[in-house]
Order: sequence, then C-alpha cells, then structure tokens
Amino acid sequence: MKFGGTSMAGTERIRRVAGIVKRQQEAGHEVAVVVSAMAGETDRLVNFCREANALYDRAEYDVVVAAGEQITSGLLALHLQALGCKARSWLGWQLPVRTDDAHAAARIEDITSDALLASMAAGEIAVIPGFQGLDPDGRVTTLGRGGSDTSAVAVAAAVQADRCDIYTDVDGVYTTDPRIVAKARKLKYVTYEEMLELASVGSKVLQTRSVSLAMKEGVRVQVLSSFIDESAPPADSIPGTMIVSDEELAKILEGTDMERQLITGIAADKNEAKVTLTRVADRPGAVAAIFGPLAEANINVDMIIQNIAKDKGETDVTFTCPQADLARTQALLEERKEQIGYYRMIADSKVAKVSVVGVGMRSHAGVAATMFKALADRGINIQAISTSEIKVSVLIDSDEVELAVRVLHTAYELDAA
Amino acid sequence: MKFGGTSMAGTERIRRVAGIVKRQQEAGHEVAVVVSAMAGETDRLVNFCREANALYDRAEYDVVVAAGEQITSGLLALHLQALGCKARSWLGWQLPVRTDDAHAAARIEDITSDALLASMAAGEIAVIPGFQGLDPDGRVTTLGRGGSDTSAVAVAAAVQADRCDIYTDVDGVYTTDPRIVAKARKLKYVTYEEMLELASVGSKVLQTRSVSLAMKEGVRVQVLSSFIDESAPPADSIPGTMIVSDEELAKILEGTDMERQLITGIAADKNEAKVTLTRVADRPGAVAAIFGPLAEANINVDMIIQNIAKDKGETDVTFTCPQADLARTQALLEERKEQIGYYRMIADSKVAKVSVVGVGMRSHAGVAATMFKALADRGINIQAISTSEIKVSVLIDSDEVELAVRVLHTAYELDAA
Repeated sequence: MKFGGTSMAGTERIRRVAGIVKRQQEAGHEVAVVVSAMAGETDRLVNFCREANALYDRAEYDVVVAAGEQITSGLLALHLQALGCKARSWLGWQLPVRTDDAHAAARIEDITSDALLASMAAGEIAVIPGFQGLDPDGRVTTLGRGGSDTSAVAVAAAVQADRCDIYTDVDGVYTTDPRIVAKARKLKYVTYEEMLELASVGSKVLQTRSVSLAMKEGVRVQVLSSFIDESAPPADSIPGTMIVSDEELAKILEGTDMERQLITGIAADKNEAKVTLTRVADRPGAVAAIFGPLAEANINVDMIIQNIAKDKGETDVTFTCPQADLARTQALLEERKEQIGYYRMIADSKVAKVSVVGVGMRSHAGVAATMFKALADRGINIQAISTSEIKVSVLIDSDEVELAVRVLHTAYELDAA
Repeated sequence: MKFGGTSMAGTERIRRVAGIVKRQQEAGHEVAVVVSAMAGETDRLVNFCREANALYDRAEYDVVVAAGEQITSGLLALHLQALGCKARSWLGWQLPVRTDDAHAAARIEDITSDALLASMAAGEIAVIPGFQGLDPDGRVTTLGRGGSDTSAVAVAAAVQADRCDIYTDVDGVYTTDPRIVAKARKLKYVTYEEMLELASVGSKVLQTRSVSLAMKEGVRVQVLSSFIDESAPPADSIPGTMIVSDEELAKILEGTDMERQLITGIAADKNEAKVTLTRVADRPGAVAAIFGPLAEANINVDMIIQNIAKDKGETDVTFTCPQADLARTQALLEERKEQIGYYRMIADSKVAKVSVVGVGMRSHAGVAATMFKALADRGINIQAISTSEIKVSVLIDSDEVELAVRVLHTAYELDAA
C-alpha cells in the first residue's frame, strides 16, 4: 500500500491511513506500506536547500529532503501501534533500498527483503519511507519528485506482493481528465503500456518510472482513492483501476461479457513547445547535428517532423520538447547555427499534444483516420503527428485542447451513458 | 564546534554559522561541526508523536525526532559549500555513533572516526547531526533532550580535538545568573567538577552528561556565544569560558598573576521540593525503607537530613527531590507508610537550593561559616544543609532565593568592579 503526501498531511489524516491499513491486515493480508512526506514538507525542505545554495550539492540535498519521509514513516508506525497493530519503520538505509549514485534522481537497483519478510511474517506491518535509498558509498539518495510510487512498486516486487495499491487523491484512471470531459469513465483495467502512454502524455496519476518498473517486474498495481469510506469492507472488489499486463487482461476478460476497448483513453499535455528550423541542408548528418547536442543535454525531444527535401536540397525540421527546456534548447541550437546550417529558428510554446491510447488499436488501421476526421470536422488544425503501436498523437493550438479532447472522447464512443 | 537550535533557526542564521565555521578553517584548524535541529522543530516532531500515540514506542519516536538534526546537518553543509568550503554531512548511522538501545535516552558507547578523520585531513569540514546514534540492532536512537552537547564532546573525544567549542545564546559561564546579579562576572576558566556542580544546581549552560563525558575523556570545552561579531578574527583569545581539568587549570595559572579563586560561582535551583517524614522509628533499616523504593523509581533524592534520635527512639527525616517527581514520591511513601513506620508526611515545594561552588574551598574550612553568617545577617532561614568537597548547598524559602544569591555573591567578593 502506498499513500501520498495529501493522505499523510497531519495527525488526523495519518490516523485515517492507519485505519485503512489495519483493515487490510484484518482481511488476512501481510502488509507493507510506503509513505510520502506530508504535503508541502518536501517543498519546504527543497526551499531551504535552494536558499542555502543555488547550485546545491545533490548528495546533501538528498540528506535534507529524505527527512520528510523518515518523519511520516515513524509517525504511521506509531499510529498503527495506537490502533493495536504491530508495526515498525524500515528506513531506506536500513533495508537497504540500494540505488545508483545519481543523487536527487537515483534509480533503485535492489531491495534486500529478508528481514522485511521475516518481520511481516511475524505479523508486523512494515512502514517504509518512499523516495529514499542508499548509494554504493553508503550515502542517502532520493529518487526524484514523485519517486514514492516507484519505491512502492519496487517494494512490492521485492516481497513478491499479490498487489501494489497506490492510494491517491483520485479514485482511479479515467478515459480522460474528468475536469475536461464530464462524461469521462473510470477504467476498471488498463495495461502497463497504455498507462505509460497515458502517464507520459499528461495523465498525472502515477510517476512514469513506477509504471515501467511494474511492467518489468510484473507487479499488479491498483490506483485508488485514499478518501474512501473508512468503515467499508476491504477492497477486494477493485474500487480503483487495476494496471496489469496485456496477457493478464486477456485472461481476465476471457469468460466475461466485457470486451477489450479499441481506445482506452485520451490524454492531453500542455507542457510541450514546438521548434522549427527552416532551410536545413538536406545532407547526411544534418539531423544528427541538431538532435545529438539536445540528447547530450538531456532534453527530451518527442515529435520530429522532417518534410521531404525541396528542390534546393533544403528542408524544414520541426520537433517538440518540454516547455521547461525550451530556453536551453534555443540557446544550444543558436550556438550551433553555422555548424547545423539553418536559416531561421521559430519557437512556439502555445501548443498542446493530444493523444489517443489503446492496446486494441494495434489491429485497427482506422484509428488515426477517425482522429483526423473528427478534428477536421471541428476545424482544429493539426500541426504535427506522431504514432506508436498503441498511440496516435497530434500537436494542436493549446487554445483548442479541451475542445479536441471532448470531440475525440465522443468520436471513440468513450462517453459514459 | 557545536551550534544549538537558536543558532540553526532558519536560512539567515545557518548562513551566519557557516561564516563562523569558515573562519576557524581559515585560521588553520581542521573542523567538525555538531548541529542541533532548528529551534522549535524537535518540539513540533515530539508533538506529532504524542498526537499519534500517547504511549509512544520510543524506537519510532527516535526515527521521527532524529530527522530534525538530519535536516540542519545537510543544510549547514550546503551553506558551507556556498561559501567555497568543502563540506559533507555524516549522519549518526553513517559514522556510526554507536549507542546502547535505551531509545529516547541512549548513551554513546563509541564513535568510529576513521572515515571522518580522513575526510577532515583532506580539507572537508565534517557536519554531524547531534542527538542521534545507532543502536546494536541497527535502529536509530536519540540521546534525550539537550543531547547534542554530549554528541559534540563525544565527537571531540573521537577525533582527539584540541578544543570543543560549544556555541550557545550566552557568552560563557558566569559567577552566577546575570539576570539575578547585575555584577556577575564571566569566568575565564572553570574546572569540570565545578561545572558539574554549577550545571546540576541550575546553571543551565551545558547538559550535565556532556560535562561528565568531557571530564572522563579530558576534552577541553569552551562555552561561547554564537552571536559574536562575524567579522572578528578567530577566537584564539578565549572569548568564552574554558572548561578544563583541575591540573590543567593549575598549569595555566602558573606563571601568570591570576590566582585561583576560593569560590567560582553561586548557583540557585528552584526546582526542588522538600519532604519531611516525622517520628520515623530510629532502628536499622528504617532509612533504607524510605530511600530504596525512591531509588528504584529513579527519583533523584538530593539533600538528606536526619536528626539525632530523640528520647523515644524516633527521629524526623527530611530530604529533597525534583519538584517534577514530588507527586510520585508522595504516592510511593504513602503506600509504604506502615512498612516505614512514620507519623506524618509534610511536603513543601516552595523551597530553593542555593549553592556556593569552588575547587578552592577544599583547603578552606571557613567557606561554610561565611555562608551561614552572611545569610543569617540578612535573616534568611536555612532549612537544610548539604556539602561536598567543592560545594556547600543550603535549602531556603524560594521567595528569598534572589536575595540570598546577591548576598553570597558579595560575601565571597565575586562582584565585578
């Protein structure tokens, strides 16, 4: 079970969480709980670090910010004990949760689970601070913001959990953002791959890395709300959304009257920016000269469109990158203007990416066509297109994003009755 | 160097501390710094624990409250780096600071200093959270409130430091509380034994346990103010008070025109309570029946006065204990009334203990006589007396404590010119 910062914000809320955890134990489960810091606490600590030193040492930053989860792990153990449960905290360095040494953005390499499993088998609820680990030099690491989801999945994998329940402030994964489309439906199941596409294009329910890890380790993840009725019976009837493998979903659907949907959901992302370089020389190496430096600078380029060369052996290259990286991107390409050989750079951050996602589309050629027609019928101009096996994305004017999502939600027959 | 919570309360103050530390390094010293949590932070965390569970598990309490010092240690390292110093934090479990398993009141057993010394020799300032350690089971411990002073002395002993500078909100140890006696003088030197007597009778500059440890390990401790002028040259001229051994003080005074004072200081303690049991049977074992149970209950009995047996083979027994333990003391003795065999129990918490302290008094019989006469001249009634090799204490009405301190400060010629 994993609880986020909103669920851990203060004594009353942690007491509520302890009640939810206790009910799972009473239902016969062995339970490990991963917790975030109290809402606002990590921001407070990050701010202290920034005030201390704008160019902060990430190893010391990790020492400071890891304290937030340490506090809530001890407190949840105390609250569980107050309810009569046996419970103890296991800090990142105690298990340990071994990570690489990429401070502030570390990756979990291994979790030693022997002591943890023995304690759980003896009836103790294990409380584990999310977000933190131990590097090969014995120093504290953190996983990057939102890293507690990844901690939870890693712990679930280490103890071979039947399920990893991620409690959030939403009650599951929806066909699209319910704030945009009132008729959005909660999904009962979604595959890892779909969830990855939904997460990475702006459906911010889970940290992307946690979904990748769940897919790699085959951990069944459930997203559900921590603001459920505390007196209700334990959640074996899937009150949230289950994230499972393609194969498991096929098995689950077998023998039921449910059918696999062609399209699982529609996602929108307003954090993209578009950059066009005009009249780039159409010669080998030109594109590499553009994207090599961006890759080295860890700028995540998403869509790339290159028109077929015009008569003069020149072409326009358009791509998207995160808005937060736009200034760095422009500076890098400005520096290399002669080397790359382009005429003009045009940047536009008033764009948004809208994607339709679904494992079912693999076998259906018409998905993209439906999308383009539906958008065209409403006069929405498509500036760029990219596709993957289970996704079609288009770039549009950011003013039109809500309209586009609503139009597509209806076009793919996702609207709730 | 050790800095308390007031010195670490927020970005501006920690930056100031970093400046003070840097100046010591610039003066050619290798430096380790022990820090407290930000003022108020430990109270905040303790309060969360109490709200969680009135009968809290001390092991989990330790996990929660140790976070406060973890935060300030990382932050001070960042501030030092911002000033161009090399610095890193060493958490209690990283060195490690090994303690027993008495959670929330642990004792330091050993500090492994190899890595610490190597780092300091390489020019890194070591920043160590006070108050925290690691028990034999690998769990977090804390030393009890005020424990950072003890951490600092233990670190100083482990690295065989030339000096352990404890920065506080006072600028040294005074002949008495300057708030009571305006003419109180700051002491340049005080011996461990004197400091112990001064600390344990109410001069709250240092945690008593830290002084005992310094005496045992021969650590030279300096108490000084952290609110000094930051631009002043490093403090090699002893701006505070040095706490040293009797032998070292003799050596220091040799060849100077300074003389050892007969009396070092006057301390007052209003936290005592007086209990009298009347008509206790004057037989072997009667006194043991009173004080045995109190000792078992960890009630710290200080002065004990037993009058010579009267005709009837009965005597009155009077003793003092901390006011905080008075209710428990009364309950314990009430339960054992028949077993002890006393007539009446009279408790009085409106008492105070005033003590004159000085290593010099060992060879001067007249110290007590001076005290009694000075108090008698002002009509102050003495309710009880106790003496040690370097201390004479009297119990008086708590309303008269300020007057008594002033009178004695003058009588022993301690007033500043």
